[in-house]
Amino acid sequence: MSDILNQLHQVLEARKGADPDSSYVASLYDKGLNKILEKVGEEAVETLLAARDTEAGGDPEALIGETADLWFHSMVMLAHLGLGPEQVLARLEQRFGLSGHDEKAARKARGE
Amino acid sequence: MSDILNQLHQVLEARKGADPDSSYVASLYDKGLNKILEKVGEEAVETLLAARDTEAGGDPEALIGETADLWFHSMVMLAHLGLGPEQVLARLEQRFGLSGHDEKAARKARGE
Amino acid sequence: MSDILNQLHQVLEARKGADPDSSYVASLYDKGLNKILEKVGEEAVETLLAARDTEAGGDPEALIGETADLWFHSMVMLAHLGLGPEQVLARLEQRFGLSGHDEKAARKARGE
Amino acid sequence: MSDILNQLHQVLEARKGADPDSSYVASLYDKGLNKILEKVGEEAVETLLAARDTEAGGDPEALIGETADLWFHSMVMLAHLGLGPEQVLARLEQRFGLSGHDEKAARKARGE
Repeated sequence: MSDILNQLHQVLEARKGADPDSSYVASLYDKGLNKILEKVGEEAVETLLAARDTEAGGDPEALIGETADLWFHSMVMLAHLGLGPEQVLARLEQRFGLSGHDEKAARKARGE
Repeated sequence: MSDILNQLHQVLEARKGADPDSSYVASLYDKGLNKILEKVGEEAVETLLAARDTEAGGDPEALIGETADLWFHSMVMLAHLGLGPEQVLARLEQRFGLSGHDEKAARKARGE
Repeated sequence: MSDILNQLHQVLEARKGADPDSSYVASLYDKGLNKILEKVGEEAVETLLAARDTEAGGDPEALIGETADLWFHSMVMLAHLGLGPEQVLARLEQRFGLSGHDEKAARKARGE
Repeated sequence: MSDILNQLHQVLEARKGADPDSSYVASLYDKGLNKILEKVGEEAVETLLAARDTEAGGDPEALIGETADLWFHSMVMLAHLGLGPEQVLARLEQRFGLSGHDEKAARKARGE
């Protein structure tokens, strides 16, 4: 399991009781779903543009940062709606047969 | 660390040598960055709409699925550009002080 | 007023009674708002990528085509919700003082 | 032809020589294509969310405003790349057979 995503989710959950003035995440919750989704959309667009910049020879660190922002804001969205990253990771696991003995198939696919 | 994201990344790397006709991911690599970014953008839009549906009482499983598609295609983008999820997770870890003894701060933040 | 946008709006209105199998626009109406919005989002993403391609020396005709698709699908969205381009153009007119004697200011701004 | 879009295009062209501190449009040109495209993307996302709000009973004026912002920023993008709305309108005209005697077909389609 993703320790970092789960730890981040715990932090996002803890922000639910916080003063909107004290925390960026608390201020997003307070502004509501549309504001959170605007941020997800903005970060998606910035990720696309940073990917084009990287392909054109730009600094890949910018793309890493934009992708982190995209995943972060999608986690704020999930937390706001009572969901979390474990459900998303479980879905990825199911689709790609990465759990249990299916994981052997994945290993095989990468030639181990 | 995220075992699932890292395992998925291994699968995505293994697809780099595959016949475009044999695998969805290999066909995306073959079509190039713009096609991959179109998919990231499409999945971001579908995620926003599914989040609104969830808020309006719709099935949250649809949102889990769209978020999984968004993360998946952003991982295809990273792999295509020679990057991976570990770098994104490390960035999130830095920003939120989730590593080492900083993790105590996160625990504290959530009242443990 | 924009004759072309208004004429196109008339066509979009006329499609409202059509069989979904007989017309692309009628099939979009039939699938509902989310499907229309997915198309608006997709065309926005394709417009961004085509703009980057144009800047990098690609054929500007591709960008013209993507922008036409973006405007077209946003007009389908407006028609589906009982709105039309005249309202959007009137808003642009208000904001930029392009109507009546205000238009003189615009002319002045461009040195006429 | 769209008088308003063409007038607006003239204003956007006139801003090309302006001081970035004196005009919003001049500041966008100065920041470059990525910043302009970020704005197009943001306005597309806000349009989608406003469309959902309108469908749910919200004020359609908000959607008119967001669509105006989307079209406006896509016109800034076109102007920045040496293009304009006439080319986009001509493309729509071609696709939908709205010019010359074809316009009769459009009229017929709407039962006139």
